[in-house]
Amino acid sequence: MSDQNPLLATGSVALDTLETPFGNTEEVLGGSAAHFALGASLFHPVDLVGVVGQDFPQKYLDLFTKRSIQIDHLEQQSGRTFRWHGRYRGAMDSAETIDIQQNVFEDYVPELTNSGARAEVLFLGNSSPRYQMKILEQVENPKFIGADTMNLWIETQSQELDSLLSRIDLFFLNYEEALSLGESDNTIKAGKEILKKGPETVIIKKGEHGALLMRDEGIFSIPGVPLEVVRDPTGAGDTFASGVMGYISNCEDIDFGALKTGVILGNLLASFTVECFGTDGMQDVEQSDLENRLQYYYECISLQSDLVQDLFTLIDQGGDTLN
Amino acid sequence: MSDQNPLLATGSVALDTLETPFGNTEEVLGGSAAHFALGASLFHPVDLVGVVGQDFPQKYLDLFTKRSIQIDHLEQQSGRTFRWHGRYRGAMDSAETIDIQQNVFEDYVPELTNSGARAEVLFLGNSSPRYQMKILEQVENPKFIGADTMNLWIETQSQELDSLLSRIDLFFLNYEEALSLGESDNTIKAGKEILKKGPETVIIKKGEHGALLMRDEGIFSIPGVPLEVVRDPTGAGDTFASGVMGYISNCEDIDFGALKTGVILGNLLASFTVECFGTDGMQDVEQSDLENRLQYYYECISLQSDLVQDLFTLIDQGGDTLN
Repeated sequence: MSDQNPLLATGSVALDTLETPFGNTEEVLGGSAAHFALGASLFHPVDLVGVVGQDFPQKYLDLFTKRSIQIDHLEQQSGRTFRWHGRYRGAMDSAETIDIQQNVFEDYVPELTNSGARAEVLFLGNSSPRYQMKILEQVENPKFIGADTMNLWIETQSQELDSLLSRIDLFFLNYEEALSLGESDNTIKAGKEILKKGPETVIIKKGEHGALLMRDEGIFSIPGVPLEVVRDPTGAGDTFASGVMGYISNCEDIDFGALKTGVILGNLLASFTVECFGTDGMQDVEQSDLENRLQYYYECISLQSDLVQDLFTLIDQGGDTLN
Repeated sequence: MSDQNPLLATGSVALDTLETPFGNTEEVLGGSAAHFALGASLFHPVDLVGVVGQDFPQKYLDLFTKRSIQIDHLEQQSGRTFRWHGRYRGAMDSAETIDIQQNVFEDYVPELTNSGARAEVLFLGNSSPRYQMKILEQVENPKFIGADTMNLWIETQSQELDSLLSRIDLFFLNYEEALSLGESDNTIKAGKEILKKGPETVIIKKGEHGALLMRDEGIFSIPGVPLEVVRDPTGAGDTFASGVMGYISNCEDIDFGALKTGVILGNLLASFTVECFGTDGMQDVEQSDLENRLQYYYECISLQSDLVQDLFTLIDQGGDTLN
């Protein structure tokens, strides 16, 4: 992929009102595409496809352009921007939707210009499979397509989702969604069922427990960044995906190794998102933060190879009663 | 620790009746100490402290002696053996207790002989903190003490548990128990609170999501073995602990590195326990199974250092908009 060809990203661009045990915030930048674009643009230019209303704050448009996020495909229509009001309690495992207003997103039909149609890497952020397919169909010759989803679409547009799955390379979904779509109580079995639906790679997002990357050639399992402060999980999955897609957009070969590295970066970026409200983490993160956090993360998860070698030796020697 | 000094292990020795979505089994060997002893004895001799009734099958006593499990401290009293009847449904996240009969275990007061009192490494498997303390107090000069617990004791014997925690080196507990005892919705915060209660090391068991090893000097986080077949989770936590304790019983210095290796072995052994019913996994596992599984596990979780180095380089170069 050339550096010049931006990562085409779509999904919702929203104004979020968020309540967590750590505070509240009103009408801040949110939506799957916004979270994704802010993360991915740290590593690769992003072409943002979406729609906002006339009430969408100029400061967020300025933020996008300040970062390498092109907004030629971000339509500003008359009407109000997509709004979501969510509340998390306790361990913040899941959000309760207090209010949702699709507004201008409801009937939005995306139309890509020529430059968009020539995108090589494509990310279809969480939105309806019908909508995701409309974008996909306008891209002439995509080299790599990633997509995310949510429970709602697994339940209400399963046929459309299956069609989408037969046409993409990488599918992101969270743990509960994987068990539901894969129709199994076992994560690995569920993942293998989803692989059969088409994508070469499935990544199961497990929040603080990290992620599972599954391909026919093997599995890669990695814990999340151990964090003492988690204030708002909103957008963590989109940020995670942005690390994966942002990383591989710079890779000549998007192979197992590149995807593994992407998953490490995804966990790393998501750790900043959950520490702050809304998109603040991805707005404020600096190079030194990333360096320090990666160092910490690597220390927490590194398997010194001599330790593993010790185990092979122990087992090889027959342990105490093994033989 | 000398090879000659066995790992002293206590807890329940039971006859379990188990129901899972994958089948049923009646009155098979179970209990925290039995699961633990069968795992740990693969790597170090075990001195098993506990009690069974007259009805305890001779074949299980034979099994213990066939392995390096001393049964001098396994009292056989008149009466019936501890019995537990448990049922798992769906994803088998937790067991429903259908019936529990303490029987001879109810009023059992352990008495160690001189050889037991000279134990260097001690594992206090899940049983009441009062009982665990009674064993601990009879050991003259323990070098390293590990203990496990369960929700019941956190709720009903919290003072006794706190006393125990001030005297042990390593504490095992599962994810939900850690949040409860550490009084936090955040795993890392909860773990740090538990460290303050005394043990130098806390290991939080997370089932398929692996384990978190926490010390003041740092955190080690590792996923579980990705498994497609999980038939019965009974004893998984005890087997996990047996890998950790069995490994470190052979170590001169029980430092962070040794504990990390122990945790890898713990996850490895537990993967065999959950694949089979009761203790069958630890009864039947062979050297070649362990070797092959360790190879698979390592492939699934290995962070090739060049991948991580790629990320450091990318961040160092400033990504796309980082600067």
